[in-house]
Amino acid sequence: MEEKKNKITGVNGPINGWLDGHTYLIGLMAYPIRHSMSPTMHNNAFAKLGLNFTYLCFEIDNKKLPKAVEAIRTLDMRGSNVSMPNKKEVIKYLDKLSPASEMCDAVNTIVNDNGVLTGYTTDGIGFMKSLEDEGIDIRGKKMCLAGAGGAATPIAVQAALDGVSEIEIFNIHDDKWAQAEKNVKTINEKTNCKASLHDLEDKDDFKRAISECDIYCDATGVGMKPLEDMTLVEDPSWFHKDMTVFDTVYAPRTTKLMKVAQKAGVKHVLNGIGMMIEQGAAAFKLWTGEDMPTDYIRQVIFENDNK
Amino acid sequence: MEEKKNKITGVNGPINGWLDGHTYLIGLMAYPIRHSMSPTMHNNAFAKLGLNFTYLCFEIDNKKLPKAVEAIRTLDMRGSNVSMPNKKEVIKYLDKLSPASEMCDAVNTIVNDNGVLTGYTTDGIGFMKSLEDEGIDIRGKKMCLAGAGGAATPIAVQAALDGVSEIEIFNIHDDKWAQAEKNVKTINEKTNCKASLHDLEDKDDFKRAISECDIYCDATGVGMKPLEDMTLVEDPSWFHKDMTVFDTVYAPRTTKLMKVAQKAGVKHVLNGIGMMIEQGAAAFKLWTGEDMPTDYIRQVIFENDNK
Repeated sequence: MEEKKNKITGVNGPINGWLDGHTYLIGLMAYPIRHSMSPTMHNNAFAKLGLNFTYLCFEIDNKKLPKAVEAIRTLDMRGSNVSMPNKKEVIKYLDKLSPASEMCDAVNTIVNDNGVLTGYTTDGIGFMKSLEDEGIDIRGKKMCLAGAGGAATPIAVQAALDGVSEIEIFNIHDDKWAQAEKNVKTINEKTNCKASLHDLEDKDDFKRAISECDIYCDATGVGMKPLEDMTLVEDPSWFHKDMTVFDTVYAPRTTKLMKVAQKAGVKHVLNGIGMMIEQGAAAFKLWTGEDMPTDYIRQVIFENDNK
Repeated sequence: MEEKKNKITGVNGPINGWLDGHTYLIGLMAYPIRHSMSPTMHNNAFAKLGLNFTYLCFEIDNKKLPKAVEAIRTLDMRGSNVSMPNKKEVIKYLDKLSPASEMCDAVNTIVNDNGVLTGYTTDGIGFMKSLEDEGIDIRGKKMCLAGAGGAATPIAVQAALDGVSEIEIFNIHDDKWAQAEKNVKTINEKTNCKASLHDLEDKDDFKRAISECDIYCDATGVGMKPLEDMTLVEDPSWFHKDMTVFDTVYAPRTTKLMKVAQKAGVKHVLNGIGMMIEQGAAAFKLWTGEDMPTDYIRQVIFENDNK
């Protein structure tokens, strides 16, 4: 419980028309989660547009998840984001799934329409949109993707749907391997993209795939605080300059992976901030019907970084 | 679901240091409740002092209450207020009660200390403090009190504890009659105040009691929207000028009862705003350890009224 006094900026007098008896709550249920930039993003967007919602983080693991979803219904929350470790687990507690969410077997956004909870996935949309925002077009290109969890799956599915020609997915033989096999099968059956699954322990194959790809994306979460000293690729020579290296992590802003890529002189090195904003904007639209003012939000988060 | 755009005042730029990933939620669980001024009060106090909490209303009736209390635990909320119809009902779902709360058999404030939920009652404290704020001293005086519910009970108990000499409680023979009998017994056993219970249907007795008292307090909630055309006392001649007439209702600001009292030329005619602020300040202290800036909050609510 953090009860210490904060220096608050942006409030210059009595707040009226917001945070009153008519305000609806939207959550973010994950663990760990208090580092998240999502509340800053959504709350500033609500304030900017005059929408009577507020967005808060709740530390929810798989064990607390059924009761947390029940709380969405009981408290008549407008909805929630879900993140690790709940993106797959949450499905069984919802009433409906969007087609994309069903294909991904993952949910990051819940919308509560009068007690009917529908799961959506906006991560893949956020990933593709964030590349587009940087002028990077990966349609017809090759991707090497590390991970097969709640972040990796919608990235793979959306990239395949949007026209990436080939995706080589690398994962260890953990509890996500079956999901990875399913992802590959779904992509090969339902899209024109060629997908394949590889063992992340086979370093020669991993190195080969990275050398042949146009975009390497790490969606494992490795490199996120408190594991900020870790990366799956430690040797800059594995990268080539005209590729894109994308880390879905955004805390820290520059991950160990990104430092290795920068050392290699890689042209486009991105953290997960753009994806975070664009997946948030897609969820914001589902909850409020309004377009998030993303340029303003980008500026808010940039200013936050420089404090 | 109200999704319309509001005109928000008091926010002049990006909000930082509040409504971020570290913000803890406090609720108000009652039905009806969206008219409540409590969120405006608490959220402006949090913003003023830089405390990282936010306070929201949830429409919770007795049926939803067990799951709503469970949500306090699951979402690790700092606590909640509870109001009608939950003040008595909530007791069975809590872990501990404060001594005053036990004596009142009512709770309006829940504090969550690492999963242990303790019930408090701050309504009686708020009632006495709001009279004190207006320079009214009812110690050694006679009170006539209408009602025996969640608001009336702590008023009777706290007034008796603080030195009111006599309290005549009026209620109809409804489901609160047993509670009223218990209140009278508790007061007569544990304080120096003389308490008695009377039938509200006996208009002659009710009229006599009002004519003899120094303060008449209506704690029934009659007169609250949407019952704003109702009052238990319709004839101004029942009142005398040198008394106090107190209505616990604060929406509308001037109730039918208050209009009758004003017509009678009664010296002190009060709505429930002062009590609402002071019971809130006592709850605020329990959650945050800080004193609510009540002068500032009074001004915020006054400005709100004049909009």
